[in-house]
Amino acid sequence: MHFADRLANAVTRTGSITCVGLDPRKAQLPAVLQNDVSDNSPSQWANAYQTFCCEIIDVVKDLVPCVKPQAAFFEALGPEGMSALGHVIRYAEQSGLLVITDGKRNDIGSTATAYADAYLGTDSPWGSDSLTVSPYLGRDSLEPFAEMCDQRQAGIFVLVKTSNPGGGLFQDRQTDGQTLYQSVASLVRELNEPRLGECGFGPVGAVVGATYPEQLAELRQAMPTSWILIPGFGAQGGAAEDVLIGLDQNGLGAIVNNSRNLIFAHAREEYRDRFSDHQWQDAVAEATKAMNDQLKRS
Amino acid sequence: MHFADRLANAVTRTGSITCVGLDPRKAQLPAVLQNDVSDNSPSQWANAYQTFCCEIIDVVKDLVPCVKPQAAFFEALGPEGMSALGHVIRYAEQSGLLVITDGKRNDIGSTATAYADAYLGTDSPWGSDSLTVSPYLGRDSLEPFAEMCDQRQAGIFVLVKTSNPGGGLFQDRQTDGQTLYQSVASLVRELNEPRLGECGFGPVGAVVGATYPEQLAELRQAMPTSWILIPGFGAQGGAAEDVLIGLDQNGLGAIVNNSRNLIFAHAREEYRDRFSDHQWQDAVAEATKAMNDQLKRS
Repeated sequence: MHFADRLANAVTRTGSITCVGLDPRKAQLPAVLQNDVSDNSPSQWANAYQTFCCEIIDVVKDLVPCVKPQAAFFEALGPEGMSALGHVIRYAEQSGLLVITDGKRNDIGSTATAYADAYLGTDSPWGSDSLTVSPYLGRDSLEPFAEMCDQRQAGIFVLVKTSNPGGGLFQDRQTDGQTLYQSVASLVRELNEPRLGECGFGPVGAVVGATYPEQLAELRQAMPTSWILIPGFGAQGGAAEDVLIGLDQNGLGAIVNNSRNLIFAHAREEYRDRFSDHQWQDAVAEATKAMNDQLKRS
Repeated sequence: MHFADRLANAVTRTGSITCVGLDPRKAQLPAVLQNDVSDNSPSQWANAYQTFCCEIIDVVKDLVPCVKPQAAFFEALGPEGMSALGHVIRYAEQSGLLVITDGKRNDIGSTATAYADAYLGTDSPWGSDSLTVSPYLGRDSLEPFAEMCDQRQAGIFVLVKTSNPGGGLFQDRQTDGQTLYQSVASLVRELNEPRLGECGFGPVGAVVGATYPEQLAELRQAMPTSWILIPGFGAQGGAAEDVLIGLDQNGLGAIVNNSRNLIFAHAREEYRDRFSDHQWQDAVAEATKAMNDQLKRS
């Protein structure tokens, strides 16, 4: 089934637009998992990351439509980390979750095709449903990914307006009254419109940070048929009312990522008195439900 | 030793500014290596890629200062491919070559740090000397890499003006008379200038395609202390006289990448009558020497 339709179905089924970001970090793993790492080797850390992420998947699989593993943290462990990433992706998919691999990859021509093959292809060793992609290299670097969306019913999320404080340095530059991020949004729309699914959305999505609510409103209009992946909610400062502008009248069209506030909930002030380190999974469940409620209430 | 000084020394020692791009592609590997792949498994292909790249390294180690493995082709094979990439990087370094890992990575804040750790850090599983980095996310996404350059005497090459035909779509956009690529070049200069080595160059370099010689001349002036990695020579159309403008009066400051015309030389019309498939390494040697000569003659 078309990626956009699968995502729409998953949002409808779970009644949630929350995306759980899987960003394992050594120092913040629950102590029970850190304790299993006796020799500080990449292979033990990779096991700990895999266990951590798979247990999160067990907790959230019926609560949210999708998860977003961050490739960088797995890559930092080397090949064993990348192997753990592949395992986590497969486990999430087997658990019924859609998977957005956050790799921010791209390159020119046939090398872009190699990245598309790597993360989205039929024989892909990582085999994710979708991938985040960087636009700096232009249209011909994005087309191989769009073609892979057709071939494999996959999706991509192109960086348009990122959530970091310094993102505007280049993204906000104006030419003839149009910012760079608006130009990127136009390209996203062009690549997406010929590829719409039954739900009315297409497979070429965009990343727009929750930390820029005005731009999110504007970009929702500029890319009316693209799924928007909204990072920056919670820990980075984005609020619920800021992100809901990303939705259409049917409550579709946007998913809101949160990583550390959900996966490291056991360490948050409001949870650490109620959940011992051994109950970290319960803290993840409660924080995820609380985020779902927060996004519904607003 | 400072990355920029190591690169200067390597250029001086070899009398070459050629960078050999290690872009293994299944269909173009010499038949003798393809024949070793009996079951089409990622692990057999990873072995073939590793053998191919290590044999190239044996051939070119005294002819050129550096090699540039393209991560995408290794990633497309999954964890086993990434393991082969790590092996190739280490083998090249042990052979006395500098290694530029072409990953075009980047992300925000602490995730950028994870990528810097992954490819350049002290405990880096890939352990390369330098990495190509994408600038779309702005200054705060590049700073963690610049800091890693200090800590580990590593280098980065920021995408400024890429060699692909469509690269200009965003990179050439003008604001107040300045293009986006010029703004990125200014940031490269700012990050690089406080970090210069004894040779007068610094660790924050730039990627500028050979296919845009006018811009290369302009960017040489705009970033006078940055090493410029010039792709697009040969197969993509850049000529020797186009790239030499990237050098300073001492013949330093630029390295020129060529991938398929060197590593798949055995299949080129001018070589295939003289070298059998079993002599593919000899074809690589001859093509590399020819490129060195071409860059010297001009």
